[in-house]
Amino acid sequence: MSADLVQLVTALASRARAASLGLATAPTAAKNSALRQLADLIDAAHPALLAANAQDLASPEAAALTPAARDRLILTSARLQHLAESVREVAVLPDPVGDVLEDFTRPNGLHIRKLRVPIGVIGIIYEARPNVTIDCAVLCLKSGNACILRGGKECFHTNTALVALIAQALSASGLAVDAVQLVPTTDRAALLTLLKLDSLIHCIIPRGGESLIRFVAENSTIPVIKHYRGVCFVYVDAAADLAMAEAITVNAKASRPSACNAAEQLLVHQSIAGKFLPAVARALAAQKVSLRCDAASAAILAREKLPHSAATAADFTTEFLDYVIAVRVVDSLDAAIATINRDSSNHSDAIVTANAAAARRFLAEVDSATVYWNASTRFTDGFEFGYGAEIGISTDRLHARGPMGLRELCTHKFVIEGTGQVRG
Amino acid sequence: MSADLVQLVTALASRARAASLGLATAPTAAKNSALRQLADLIDAAHPALLAANAQDLASPEAAALTPAARDRLILTSARLQHLAESVREVAVLPDPVGDVLEDFTRPNGLHIRKLRVPIGVIGIIYEARPNVTIDCAVLCLKSGNACILRGGKECFHTNTALVALIAQALSASGLAVDAVQLVPTTDRAALLTLLKLDSLIHCIIPRGGESLIRFVAENSTIPVIKHYRGVCFVYVDAAADLAMAEAITVNAKASRPSACNAAEQLLVHQSIAGKFLPAVARALAAQKVSLRCDAASAAILAREKLPHSAATAADFTTEFLDYVIAVRVVDSLDAAIATINRDSSNHSDAIVTANAAAARRFLAEVDSATVYWNASTRFTDGFEFGYGAEIGISTDRLHARGPMGLRELCTHKFVIEGTGQVRG
Repeated sequence: MSADLVQLVTALASRARAASLGLATAPTAAKNSALRQLADLIDAAHPALLAANAQDLASPEAAALTPAARDRLILTSARLQHLAESVREVAVLPDPVGDVLEDFTRPNGLHIRKLRVPIGVIGIIYEARPNVTIDCAVLCLKSGNACILRGGKECFHTNTALVALIAQALSASGLAVDAVQLVPTTDRAALLTLLKLDSLIHCIIPRGGESLIRFVAENSTIPVIKHYRGVCFVYVDAAADLAMAEAITVNAKASRPSACNAAEQLLVHQSIAGKFLPAVARALAAQKVSLRCDAASAAILAREKLPHSAATAADFTTEFLDYVIAVRVVDSLDAAIATINRDSSNHSDAIVTANAAAARRFLAEVDSATVYWNASTRFTDGFEFGYGAEIGISTDRLHARGPMGLRELCTHKFVIEGTGQVRG
Repeated sequence: MSADLVQLVTALASRARAASLGLATAPTAAKNSALRQLADLIDAAHPALLAANAQDLASPEAAALTPAARDRLILTSARLQHLAESVREVAVLPDPVGDVLEDFTRPNGLHIRKLRVPIGVIGIIYEARPNVTIDCAVLCLKSGNACILRGGKECFHTNTALVALIAQALSASGLAVDAVQLVPTTDRAALLTLLKLDSLIHCIIPRGGESLIRFVAENSTIPVIKHYRGVCFVYVDAAADLAMAEAITVNAKASRPSACNAAEQLLVHQSIAGKFLPAVARALAAQKVSLRCDAASAAILAREKLPHSAATAADFTTEFLDYVIAVRVVDSLDAAIATINRDSSNHSDAIVTANAAAARRFLAEVDSATVYWNASTRFTDGFEFGYGAEIGISTDRLHARGPMGLRELCTHKFVIEGTGQVRG
């Protein structure tokens, strides 16, 4: 790659790092003012934003997108209004910076406080979704982090227009405009340079499909917080309330199959399979969900002449993201737990049972970020948790696991006050 | 590399992963029993351990070590007694697993708890230090994590003997012996395989010099928690108590220069430099510390005919780990903060001042893991913080930052109890 590109990306990251130092101690009022101004600027700039978006939509890159991906690229006035509203919602959330996490005094008199502080500079690597530009910039800003945005090439003009508004809002609120920066090229070599700048950038969050996330994780020397999708399970126990189990299974699968917290896998205890499976199969069929079954579940559905197909081995670890669910009969709670710990992606898994002892074992022994007793897996979500915001759902175990809000965009520092203490 | 080696390392990691699931919910009493038995086994095995250690010390690899590195490899009966005692100390620490971090009920009735749980499988990559084998295995065990130990080849026989004792202690306490595993080869290809097993291993902690840590960070697709060393600063403000400043500077530099929390850099406000620098130079000289000075500080020391040398530009960002300190005069608090944020490693930095407003600005604006007001940087340590244990001092910002004890070896899970809730 060219030396110019290396220099450009390094200079951009250096400016973001410098801006991050000021932003880390910026008053909450200034950050909220910038957010409110940004919302107003978005409201006032519909024509310019829609024109930039039209330019992107007319590009050959946009023509190559799938219909679903193209839809996510499209801005409309209604979507812009919604975007501005989401910015205003972040403005009223509590500022996480400065929270006291620990506060204690040692026998030698040292007063130690562990305080929540911004991480520093966060790199966001994403695809052709203009809403990610605003969502991520806004959450980073509120949590006192500078951010470097590297969006997809299909979205470049829209992103440039949006980031110009962010710069205007920052400037009008007395904050450094370098705090939010768009990488001005979608050259992959520039991305590779960025991912090695571990002395200037402190955290990388890729937002997109699994291949993007894997590429980033494999090429970054900066810590990456990953948001892979989910292979989520619902286990219907011997002691389940079957009407509740049916409602939960249908909701977990069919309320939004494209979500990472949607169920992909159903496990049914053998003692209730003969009764439960035909009922849930009918309810799922009514939602146009097709069933891929192991031999035991297939036999039950075949007896009742209910539609289903035989699952392949791969189906039992697949994230369909579609109106498809894989079904297995298990002979015990132990088998259910072992199956989930082997085949799930440790994202969100549920048990339906009236047996509290079985539920407690499931909740303790299933090694997933979120485990449910008698509720749909679909609640794994920062808004549903009441966090008021969500930058993603971490499938990592370090730093953030599960829904990731403003607090998870922070680290901490130890602030220690003494009276001249030295170590013996 | 050979397919055999890949298979061997993968099988070992699979066994560790399986063991981690059981260990995650193991009773505190069983873990503590294993720790106490391990301490007793170490006490009883001095002859065998010293024989294994002698075999390592006689190897050509050990002969190539520096005297300091060779010293760290050597076991003695006194060191083994100390090691057993450190294991007993971990046994009496509180178990971090199960701590309730959040507990709330949503308007829809969902009861959400965020509980502290083990990370899972932790890989420890280290050099020729047998105490790391015990320290890390013991802290992982207490925090409910399985661990995979990959020590240096100079230490292989000693490590093998130690891990055999750990297996005996695990087995005697009813815990899976696979919970602590030594990679049975020090082949670098085996290490490279290990660092890509991101579906079986959840966290890598390299313990050793910067080149080892960089190698691991660059080659791992598993999240790495890094423990780089420190370029720590002491800033003596215009309003400092000069006797206190002298005591803190001498302690921060000379009490243990090889430690990562030792000061390497001294900044002195110009208004007190003429008085403070000669005094601190004499006190440091008494500890055999040599001073590498900028022009302003050199001029002051030259006037008093005190020994010093001219610093190079590199000295101002160097971790000497030796009886050497770099010295600069700054003309303001702002300059001190900017210098530290540019040149320090963001590990531990101190201000000495009687001016509370200056101190507050320093504590807020210096972007380091640990910031001190009127105390030595040498207190950055898990034991000094009262954490009872320390697996290292993280220089990362994600997950753990600063001293890393048992709690930092844990992640969390969300445990959600409902009454049939589905998402609308």
